[in-house]
Amino acid sequence: MSTSALQVALLGCGTVGSEVVRLLQEQAADFEARCGAKLELTGIAVRDLEATRPDHVPTELLTTEAEELVERADLVIELIGGIEPARSLILRAINHGASVITGNKALLAAHGPQLYQAVVDNDVDLYYEAAVAGAVPVVYALRESLAGDEVTRISGIVNGTTNVVIDMMETEGKTFAEAVKTAQDLGYAEADPSADIDGYDAAAKIAIMASIAFHSRVALDQVHTKGISELTPEQLQAAKDEGYRVKLIATAERRAEGISIWVAPSLVPLSNPLSSISGADNAVVTESKAAGRLMFTGQGAGGAPTASAVLSDVVAAAAKRVSGGHAPRELPYAALPVLASDERIGIYQVRLLVRDTVGVLAKVAQIFADAGVSIAKVQQATRARHDAVLSLTTHATSYGQLAEAISQLRECDVVANVQWVIEVEG
Amino acid sequence: MSTSALQVALLGCGTVGSEVVRLLQEQAADFEARCGAKLELTGIAVRDLEATRPDHVPTELLTTEAEELVERADLVIELIGGIEPARSLILRAINHGASVITGNKALLAAHGPQLYQAVVDNDVDLYYEAAVAGAVPVVYALRESLAGDEVTRISGIVNGTTNVVIDMMETEGKTFAEAVKTAQDLGYAEADPSADIDGYDAAAKIAIMASIAFHSRVALDQVHTKGISELTPEQLQAAKDEGYRVKLIATAERRAEGISIWVAPSLVPLSNPLSSISGADNAVVTESKAAGRLMFTGQGAGGAPTASAVLSDVVAAAAKRVSGGHAPRELPYAALPVLASDERIGIYQVRLLVRDTVGVLAKVAQIFADAGVSIAKVQQATRARHDAVLSLTTHATSYGQLAEAISQLRECDVVANVQWVIEVEG
Repeated sequence: MSTSALQVALLGCGTVGSEVVRLLQEQAADFEARCGAKLELTGIAVRDLEATRPDHVPTELLTTEAEELVERADLVIELIGGIEPARSLILRAINHGASVITGNKALLAAHGPQLYQAVVDNDVDLYYEAAVAGAVPVVYALRESLAGDEVTRISGIVNGTTNVVIDMMETEGKTFAEAVKTAQDLGYAEADPSADIDGYDAAAKIAIMASIAFHSRVALDQVHTKGISELTPEQLQAAKDEGYRVKLIATAERRAEGISIWVAPSLVPLSNPLSSISGADNAVVTESKAAGRLMFTGQGAGGAPTASAVLSDVVAAAAKRVSGGHAPRELPYAALPVLASDERIGIYQVRLLVRDTVGVLAKVAQIFADAGVSIAKVQQATRARHDAVLSLTTHATSYGQLAEAISQLRECDVVANVQWVIEVEG
Repeated sequence: MSTSALQVALLGCGTVGSEVVRLLQEQAADFEARCGAKLELTGIAVRDLEATRPDHVPTELLTTEAEELVERADLVIELIGGIEPARSLILRAINHGASVITGNKALLAAHGPQLYQAVVDNDVDLYYEAAVAGAVPVVYALRESLAGDEVTRISGIVNGTTNVVIDMMETEGKTFAEAVKTAQDLGYAEADPSADIDGYDAAAKIAIMASIAFHSRVALDQVHTKGISELTPEQLQAAKDEGYRVKLIATAERRAEGISIWVAPSLVPLSNPLSSISGADNAVVTESKAAGRLMFTGQGAGGAPTASAVLSDVVAAAAKRVSGGHAPRELPYAALPVLASDERIGIYQVRLLVRDTVGVLAKVAQIFADAGVSIAKVQQATRARHDAVLSLTTHATSYGQLAEAISQLRECDVVANVQWVIEVEG
């Protein structure tokens, strides 16, 4: 057992990185007691040495030589984000025997398997609590707390930006474009908000969670992903009138046929606790055979909350450098297939503008029946002149069958318009 | 690295124990993949070999020789409960080099330090996720997920029985005695419900959580504990009218002076998510400097959920037998003092029946001021003939000062009656 100081290298010193530096300074004595060794920050790799940074960041530790830095570290904290140079630096660190802590969801969703294997080959650890839902410890939950159980479903609100945008559209009646603009002005959305808005940030997170929970490999491009840009204030209002709230929900289900995984704006009934998650909070619900339903809620982003997640991983990784052992490994031993988009199973609400004449419902119902889609509920929502609005909710159905029905409905003479098709969360 | 089978001994085969047996059978292949070794159940110690048990429990593994069983195990799962023989058996297991998984909150709250030290001396592990809030992974959260942060407060609903009883009193207007009887009939309350009703079960759980979170020793008898037996349907109704729900809340706070820790029925505002936890669910809210507020919700009791928590610990302990390392240790390095009852700080609502005459409020207010208690809100609740009901809410105050004020109020000629004094959760 070595108790000499552990050398910690930090890659990136933005909002989260500078909070990590602060916590390492402020809680040095705590971390030493918890890890069994001092943590010594030996360098901070940045692109621009001259950029403005908080006073507590020691300028003498800044360096542009990231490659050299990771080669002499016991622990490497990667907070650069994106694929390169993050991937090469992490692999270099692992190959030099360092354990790595990262918050890089895009990298894990795209290249996780390569990193997981490198970790096994080099007998080091990879931790990434900060990659999913900020301070909310869902990676711990799936890697450790539910390791004695069989997870059957994960669903959650894991992107704060979209939640803020939808909130503004719902409560202030803003259009999508207006709400995005306001979210940008308030610092909730990035200058280029597409990764959030189009659902890819949430897709990366659910891919990571599903890989752990189902002990299988799930890649980002296997996640059926739909963003929020087509939502309208009218749709949110109509949902509210029917007792739902609209949220961007990321879901992964373990089914007999394989893993069904998607990200989509969804109707969430008020009885579901996810309906009450507002603002930038994140929440994840896990369902497992023995434990039943568990819910984890908290701040999903921001410098300090994300730094808290990073540091918990640092403490765990450091303790293992001192006393041996390793983190749970991402072994894809279950090797479950991921269902194609058409095969995934969901519940949908379809809203149609139809001619208000006798026999319309029979025609519409027949189209669903022909496609093999079973209807759970039909409601005539509104009526205007010669038209009526029909709202139909399906039973669980495959997306392929639903798409077939929708395609037929668009052809049907009594249907003026398919207003929307939206997921329903149970 | 050994990959031969690990010998698992189970002590106790009641509701949770027989679920543990079932999961060990059903998920054997999963656990082998996750741990890196087969788990072999080598014996189940019971008091009565002839008792009726579910069919899946292998009778050939039953034994009354618990002492002998633990001596030849790698992992010992203790689900007997109570202090003895659980304590002796756990110590015997540890001294023989076994790691121990237990759900025994009473034992941990009373003799935790002895067990924690034995674990260090023998270089084995002690896991106890099942001791607090069933399947809700709060022990993991405090031992690992928040190890990079400084926890400042824990509060929660950690006893399902009292939550069910209060729910019935609130929604059905039952008296305390009626609600307890119904809860017993429905299987939510034990034949002797005192450990739940009087708050000691919750007190053991908060003592365990505070010990981990604050890296200090907190004993059960240091928890200021008040049960729910004095609650009345009228009080619950009055609380509801004022926008609160009453819950038995367990709280531990890290203050400059030390740890303030208590269990008490409390007014919870509807804006606090703990107000919506109903039935037998448990919920724990942690507050920490960097992560802010996190909430964990799920089933706090029952065979399968508790078995899920036990098995997650079994997997973690087994993985460490295979690949080295150890669980985070309960090192009381912070050694924070626990504040005496009188010194703990809370917010209180005091409800007084007073003579409805001029100058009453001035007299009452003066009594609080003399005791050093600052008042945040005064409300005249109801009025009947010559009397009025005054509801006063304090600012944060020490319990000693509050008690002094209450004692003076009881002496005061304008106060007919102190109807109740109750904690207010923020």
